[in-house]
Amino acid sequence: MGTSMCGHLLAGGFPVLVCSRTRERAEPLLDRGASWAETPAAVAGEADVVFTMVGYPADVREVALGARGVLTSARPGCVLVDMTTSEPSLAREIHAAAKERGLDAVDAPVSGGDVGARNATLSIMTGGDADTVERLRPLFGLLGKTVVHQGGPGSGQHAKMVNQTLIATGLIGVCEALLYAHKAGLNPETVLESVGGGAAGSWSLANYAPRMMHGDFAPGFMVEHFIKDMEIALAEARRMDLSLPGLALAHELYLALRAQGGGRDGVHALIRALARLSAVDWTA
Amino acid sequence: MGTSMCGHLLAGGFPVLVCSRTRERAEPLLDRGASWAETPAAVAGEADVVFTMVGYPADVREVALGARGVLTSARPGCVLVDMTTSEPSLAREIHAAAKERGLDAVDAPVSGGDVGARNATLSIMTGGDADTVERLRPLFGLLGKTVVHQGGPGSGQHAKMVNQTLIATGLIGVCEALLYAHKAGLNPETVLESVGGGAAGSWSLANYAPRMMHGDFAPGFMVEHFIKDMEIALAEARRMDLSLPGLALAHELYLALRAQGGGRDGVHALIRALARLSAVDWTA
Repeated sequence: MGTSMCGHLLAGGFPVLVCSRTRERAEPLLDRGASWAETPAAVAGEADVVFTMVGYPADVREVALGARGVLTSARPGCVLVDMTTSEPSLAREIHAAAKERGLDAVDAPVSGGDVGARNATLSIMTGGDADTVERLRPLFGLLGKTVVHQGGPGSGQHAKMVNQTLIATGLIGVCEALLYAHKAGLNPETVLESVGGGAAGSWSLANYAPRMMHGDFAPGFMVEHFIKDMEIALAEARRMDLSLPGLALAHELYLALRAQGGGRDGVHALIRALARLSAVDWTA
Repeated sequence: MGTSMCGHLLAGGFPVLVCSRTRERAEPLLDRGASWAETPAAVAGEADVVFTMVGYPADVREVALGARGVLTSARPGCVLVDMTTSEPSLAREIHAAAKERGLDAVDAPVSGGDVGARNATLSIMTGGDADTVERLRPLFGLLGKTVVHQGGPGSGQHAKMVNQTLIATGLIGVCEALLYAHKAGLNPETVLESVGGGAAGSWSLANYAPRMMHGDFAPGFMVEHFIKDMEIALAEARRMDLSLPGLALAHELYLALRAQGGGRDGVHALIRALARLSAVDWTA
């Protein structure tokens, strides 16, 4: 996703410095005029805005707050924009650390996946100072089509957790519905004609059910990353004294799917774990 | 819903005989030219097609197979069309009993609710003999916009169970997402701007979340009826040796909601039961 998004910044006419753990993944961007930097600190030393898009909260911490991280070298007024799906509490910590150094930080996770990144149709959920988010709007506008300020630091991450909670629990329903149809001897495509356009309709049903039916479990969005997101949401919910039994069930089912070897499948492979519960062979 | 649907048949130019437990509910139809019949048997004695739309499977059984039921008096060639959401096994039983008497039967539950019935935009899921369903198409076309033949007797009911499974589990996600947003201090309307249009989007989110947010729990579709539907789906799943943990969780939460006095609320009142789990006062 980072490669696509960075490409849009280049296409928008902005000079870009790139840093990646694996340099070869940056090559297409370097060919298009981006410059290479060895460390996040080397990027930050010359940048007005630093976008980060990494894997896990530990990676965000290292890139932002680590020994060779952005905050060690950023110049006054520089803004760190973390677009990773990460912890709201870490976003607040980075924001506070940035402010202490005369810098600023915004959390700006996205939904829309690899396709949204490629087509610049992402939904960008931002948390931080409203005026900073406003100043970044021309850049965000190159990356996505929906840019909404959700509140103070961490609020973008919280909104992303709302998004993931909806997807996780909704996907259980899509899987169970297809399994029911299968066991009842219905033709799943014919069932979708009846149920897809009404009160049972959803993006997941329209987009994931056909892939489940055709046994296409390529990501898309990977199980391992989804588990990370659910664990952030559940930890935050626990901290807020909030019981979320549906999300907890989804998390358990995804742990089972990972245990069964599905960690690098797309999230819609959930149907395999649910099928296995009832000894159904989901080859569809 | 029966009143709206029957009105469309009258508007379509068909002569209609009406029978209802409470005659006054039929008055608007009688005013528009329908004739009154005292019993289902009295309707069937003069009808080519008998539509039934009642409450519970026990009511379907009585109206179809009971002492004053449709099958006691229907003439050869008459078709019984049950549009109640009811048991697939009962639909098969009625179909077999009808065939024995030279009659026919189709199960044709609908989705789209009271609004869909009023606007003739229902999705009609049909089970039974394909040629019979085809002959009924001009009538179904007056009642809904999506009419799909799902297979043999009971298949319409099975498709409806798929529909309800999707809604039940999806609604848990919508409730938990709003509760998370609430506890995290986000503005739920602002969150919906970010999450409503993408991979987390659904009919339930677009239509029920605003009502949950405004504390409007009028039905719509009533908790008591939804519990009945889920119990049919879970019983069928058990019979098919299929474990559906998401639907089972939804069922448990709806039992809690009913125990808390919400049986006659709309199904989106689920958020009250989930809020209560965490001692959140959902007046929103």
